[in-house]
Formats: sequence, C-alpha cells, structure tokens
Amino acid sequence: MPGGTVAVASDHAGFDLKEILKRDLQAAGHEVLDLGTNSTQSVDYPDFGRALAEAVASGKASRGVLVCGTGIGISIAANRNPGIRAALVHDVTSARLSREHNDANVAAFGQRVIGAETAREALKVFLSTNFEGGRHAGRVAKLSRVAVS
Amino acid sequence: MPGGTVAVASDHAGFDLKEILKRDLQAAGHEVLDLGTNSTQSVDYPDFGRALAEAVASGKASRGVLVCGTGIGISIAANRNPGIRAALVHDVTSARLSREHNDANVAAFGQRVIGAETAREALKVFLSTNFEGGRHAGRVAKLSRVAVS
Repeated sequence: MPGGTVAVASDHAGFDLKEILKRDLQAAGHEVLDLGTNSTQSVDYPDFGRALAEAVASGKASRGVLVCGTGIGISIAANRNPGIRAALVHDVTSARLSREHNDANVAAFGQRVIGAETAREALKVFLSTNFEGGRHAGRVAKLSRVAVS
Repeated sequence: MPGGTVAVASDHAGFDLKEILKRDLQAAGHEVLDLGTNSTQSVDYPDFGRALAEAVASGKASRGVLVCGTGIGISIAANRNPGIRAALVHDVTSARLSREHNDANVAAFGQRVIGAETAREALKVFLSTNFEGGRHAGRVAKLSRVAVS
C-alpha cells in the first residue's frame, strides 16, 4: 500500500519508537497522521489507542501503528473498536501472519520488549503483506460481530 | 491466586498448548473450566475467544487462558468484551508487566510462535503477579470505558 495514509500514536513509553517508525513511513512515501503523544511526559495509553482506532475505523487512515511499553495496553484499547484488528507484533513472523490470517489493520509494538530494528522490519512486512482471504475471511467477519456482554 | 477457577480455550492451532497449560493449572490446584476446542479439527477462533471472555467477565472464572496460532486473532476477539483485558504474552517479562501495569485478566499465547516451556513459565508468572495499582489504576479504568464508534 505505497502512498496510503498511516496513523501513528503512542504513550510516553512508546514515544521514541513511534518517532523512528514515523520517519520510516515518511521515507517510504506514506502520508503520516501523527496523533501523539509528542514527548516522553506521562500520558494515558487508552486515550491514544482510542484516538488511533477512530482514525482508522473512520477511514482517515488505512492503517495504524501503536506503541506503548509492552504494546499490550494500547492494543487492548484499540481493539475495543469493532472496526479495528490491532495485532501485537513481536517479530516479522507475527507481523506477516497478522496480515495473512487476521487482516490486521493496526500493528502494535512494545518499545520496552522488542528492539527498534525488529520493529522497523516487522512494520515493513506488515504494510507489504496481503490478507489471504479464503477460510480466514469468515473468521475475520466474526471479529466484527463479536458482541459485548 | 491458588485454587481459583481458570477458564481455558483455544482453536485447533492452539489445542496442543492449551492441553499442556491445562494440565499445569490442574497440577497447581486450580479448577479449570475448559471451553474447548477439543481436537485439532478446524474451528473458528472468534467463537472460542468470545466464549472465554464471557466466562471471565461474568465471574464464572477469575482468569482466562487463550491459545491460537499466533494468539493475535483469539485475543482480539476476547478484547471486544469491555470486561476483558487479554494480554498477548510472548515471555515472562510481558506476562509480568501485563499484570503489574494492565491488570490483565486473560493471557493469550501463540502456539506457532513461542515454545511450550516459555508459555508454561509465563503463565505461572501471570497467575502469581499482582496489579501494581497507583498510576496504572486510572488507565485500566479507562480501558473499560473506551467507547466503540
């Protein structure tokens, strides 16, 4: 998806990696919608996960990138939105499979648990891998229909 | 939380690891609520993620364990339920942080991406680590209030 708009967001613990990934996205020709945070001052990850989810679900961006300390909290926040499939990505393999099998539209990273080079390569694979469809399509459709109790 | 009820669920690609973790839980004195699947025949992970989320959110179990190929799809399904904080766990460190910072009530594992010993040790840490509260409590509360658009 060269040239597509990619939204990025992080909390303070993911700020540095968010900035690195943002530069890579711009260098690859993507328009980047940066939803913050803009420093390492303490903020609440749910606010940023929610804002990014709304940007992607509404079509303002076609993909999203989230970073917090572990990637766990901010990806949980994003996945509250039924239009979002946020994959917590630890490596190239999980990035690839999240696209092929889950049609993930958001990649989440943990700045404290994986290195920047691993994240950079995984994001590249995430953005260049297509959904396989087929038997996976029905399962992905069910993810949008999962009711809340 | 020795003796508490732990719900477990997986799809076909996570069945073998689910069975291993189930035996560990039983050996540690937990009551285990096994929501399937019960073989390696192909099933849809959203059905199992949703069922486990309902069991934990309703209080039938105090914690949950999910397994699919990567852990990504089944954890997205569980996190559609606002009462669930499902952490995709890749190691002991992310298991510990998901409890300390996110008060995660479900641990999700990817059978195709981490080894059984890593998952076994991470689950042990997940179940024995307390939430830190403090500055994290307000963020966790926001995770339950994240609106869907």
